Amino acid sequence: MPAFIETPAKTPTGDASFFATEPEGPTVVTSVPGPKSKEAICRLDKVYDSAAAVLMGDYQKSRGNYLVDVDGNVLLDVYAQIASIPVGYNNPTLHQAATSPAMTSALINRPSLCNFPQSDLATILETGLLKVAPKGMDQVYPALSGADANELAFKAAFMWRRQQERGGRDVDFTQEELESTMLNLEPGSPNLSIMSFKAAFHGRLFGSLSTTRSKPIHKLDIPAFDWPQCPFPAIKYPLEEYVEENVQEEQRCLEEAERIIKTHPSKVAAVIVEPIQSEGGDNHASPAFFQGLREITRRHGVLLIADEVQTGVGATGRFWAHEHWNLSDPPDMVTFSKKAQTGGFYFGNRDIRPNQPYRLCNTWMGDAARAILFGAIVDEIERLDLVKNTALVGDYLYGEMEKLANKYPGKFDNLRGKGKGTFIAFDNPKRDEFVALAKTHGVHIGGCGVSGIRLRPMLVFQKHHADILLGVFDKIAQQI
Amino acid sequence: MPAFIETPAKTPTGDASFFATEPEGPTVVTSVPGPKSKEAICRLDKVYDSAAAVLMGDYQKSRGNYLVDVDGNVLLDVYAQIASIPVGYNNPTLHQAATSPAMTSALINRPSLCNFPQSDLATILETGLLKVAPKGMDQVYPALSGADANELAFKAAFMWRRQQERGGRDVDFTQEELESTMLNLEPGSPNLSIMSFKAAFHGRLFGSLSTTRSKPIHKLDIPAFDWPQCPFPAIKYPLEEYVEENVQEEQRCLEEAERIIKTHPSKVAAVIVEPIQSEGGDNHASPAFFQGLREITRRHGVLLIADEVQTGVGATGRFWAHEHWNLSDPPDMVTFSKKAQTGGFYFGNRDIRPNQPYRLCNTWMGDAARAILFGAIVDEIERLDLVKNTALVGDYLYGEMEKLANKYPGKFDNLRGKGKGTFIAFDNPKRDEFVALAKTHGVHIGGCGVSGIRLRPMLVFQKHHADILLGVFDKIAQQI
Repeated sequence: MPAFIETPAKTPTGDASFFATEPEGPTVVTSVPGPKSKEAICRLDKVYDSAAAVLMGDYQKSRGNYLVDVDGNVLLDVYAQIASIPVGYNNPTLHQAATSPAMTSALINRPSLCNFPQSDLATILETGLLKVAPKGMDQVYPALSGADANELAFKAAFMWRRQQERGGRDVDFTQEELESTMLNLEPGSPNLSIMSFKAAFHGRLFGSLSTTRSKPIHKLDIPAFDWPQCPFPAIKYPLEEYVEENVQEEQRCLEEAERIIKTHPSKVAAVIVEPIQSEGGDNHASPAFFQGLREITRRHGVLLIADEVQTGVGATGRFWAHEHWNLSDPPDMVTFSKKAQTGGFYFGNRDIRPNQPYRLCNTWMGDAARAILFGAIVDEIERLDLVKNTALVGDYLYGEMEKLANKYPGKFDNLRGKGKGTFIAFDNPKRDEFVALAKTHGVHIGGCGVSGIRLRPMLVFQKHHADILLGVFDKIAQQI
Repeated sequence: MPAFIETPAKTPTGDASFFATEPEGPTVVTSVPGPKSKEAICRLDKVYDSAAAVLMGDYQKSRGNYLVDVDGNVLLDVYAQIASIPVGYNNPTLHQAATSPAMTSALINRPSLCNFPQSDLATILETGLLKVAPKGMDQVYPALSGADANELAFKAAFMWRRQQERGGRDVDFTQEELESTMLNLEPGSPNLSIMSFKAAFHGRLFGSLSTTRSKPIHKLDIPAFDWPQCPFPAIKYPLEEYVEENVQEEQRCLEEAERIIKTHPSKVAAVIVEPIQSEGGDNHASPAFFQGLREITRRHGVLLIADEVQTGVGATGRFWAHEHWNLSDPPDMVTFSKKAQTGGFYFGNRDIRPNQPYRLCNTWMGDAARAILFGAIVDEIERLDLVKNTALVGDYLYGEMEKLANKYPGKFDNLRGKGKGTFIAFDNPKRDEFVALAKTHGVHIGGCGVSGIRLRPMLVFQKHHADILLGVFDKIAQQI
């Protein structure tokens, strides 16, 4: 076992590191990518499309918040594999789960969970995925990724809608439906849709891509369903200065949502929305907006899907970001992936389960190995009180960034994410240069939208990491 | 480590078992599902849709070809988790890979392989997935499942087609394309299609489901693309008696394929075809049919995708089933999953790689943990000469089944799969009763199509297992 496996100190807000062997700070020895990274990417590219690769990681050497690359650079990682590393590289609790007999069996004896489930599946779900299920939700459909999760949720929504139209769960299909669906035609393959928002990102398979609206490069040349797009509130910052304008903007978007639901030729079965639009630029809306959306969807018999693929699992200072909405009536489905290290969706209403077997089945139905790992992630989050940690560190970081924004006008525009843990973002007109400069100072950070820079540290990001990050931001602001 | 981890004897065709501690035969102690399975399924169903569950497996106790359930039944498993267990339950070589430091790191430090790949990725691919790449193919796109693999291949096909229409890889998108795709409209989101065959199964996501034509229950209530369906040859058996009819039937289907490609309003970018239609009923066609399909697609600038999700990785007596086609010009892409324990697609022509980064990307781009496991599967296949084993055992089994078919007319109809390893099937008018009776005799077997029974044993299925299976078939034929 690696030497770093020690019991970390329990210190949310504290000064001691959670990980005894985490580096004390970044070390930059080459440009990023350095010569070894470039050579390794070049070799990899011979067999595997590496056009988007920007470094080659040495993950066995990486620790906690620090990514080590093959050139020996040690980078403070506040991008975390596109927001998907939950509790640090080589986390000891995860290491233990990954070497357990249950994990080994799940890896080498992968069952068809739908048909021939493994005896410990209920326990795996109850001690992991379901232990942290959103309020009002006690059912889960596992999937393999965020896009897969969203597509499964869409399928469940369409089936639910059509069973409602048929007159309930027990009404069977007509002969016409059975025959027409084999030809991909109505009524068996109905003209129903999922409404999504402008600038949304929900994945890149054919159904999910039809709801994704963040960037053309994701969508070009791929046939798409003619599903409707609703404007998402274009909120102005700082919030205190634009109270009235923002209320009106959200009202405009809600009215448009209702108009689309009432009039779009492909009837809307569900609305999918991110609590914070992430890939599209870290676009926020107020609890009132989401409450209004819940009210409209409920009134029109349309399901509401909260896409928590990027926002879920603690990063916003709550376990699920939609908890910030303060709904009295929860979303119908909540999808997740990324920091869960596996995909899937939650729901509470058993009517959302298909009314017959084999309708939402597939060979594997997720991956028990990854579900076991999620159990360990949940244990680690509880043991170290990481949601609280993220809330506290986020508040500190946001406060300090406000000071930076005042100190360097135009460098940290539209600072956003107050009260949302470390899920903080800002705009910089020279975004790509900013991101590149950060690497020269040992910080690995990511962009989003047109000019956004998003912070996506892990849940083990602490005050002393925040101070390093703030120091680097200060240097960049002077350089750029 | 489990006690069974011993070096198995190397005996393709031989009598000794590959696994020293494999049970000598099935043991049936309860009905299947038994009381403990039923209770466990009932508990699981409270949180996870278990409507399709037919037993609860105890996979830590399962060994080689034998599935052990929680009631203590020991079943000879010739269904193998819907054709997806490659080299036996608790295979020692896989056990070793699953407990290696590389596996642990891949599990707990899951990178975004597209953006920040891990340093051992090229080696993992070269010693696993690419070591067994089909002839003429030296590139791989990893995915998470068979459906995911097919959807990625479809996306690559659409991008390739549009770049051809644009005038080559270096021609950029127009402003009109960039804007229209954000609205899911042409020309950015073009009206292109994938042609598939009647009774085909290619997965259950929105694009792949639009090409799936096996059963209405998979498709009902899900919006679908209006993509074309071509008839698949309805071959008559025994082949020797219907030579002329079968030639004509295949010719008819080829003519129809060409007619659709020339006339369908949504222009066909690719044709996807299974070497043996599996879910749809184990429907075979001759090498001449596939050669004709390759010729037609090539002539019309349409890509040909071989879907080897169920047929690939050795079960047909060749590593890839499309090797039986004897093509001089290979398929453009080959998709895989199931026995590979991970998904993806192979290709040889670098023009099939997208012309810009981020077009086929996603956060994880497969799972290095599962790719490491596939490397161990390949090692085990080579070490035990399992493709040869499957060819030899399959020939023996097919010969004996011909005798059974003659002995019991009407019980083993349309016996098919001669020369295709253990990928053997037959029809029985009381199929579901047959499958249920098999369990009472300790054999776990699966159906396909309307009345098909398909054999999908693992690659470690040996002559002595075949003899047990044949004995059970004889008993059922007398009972049914």
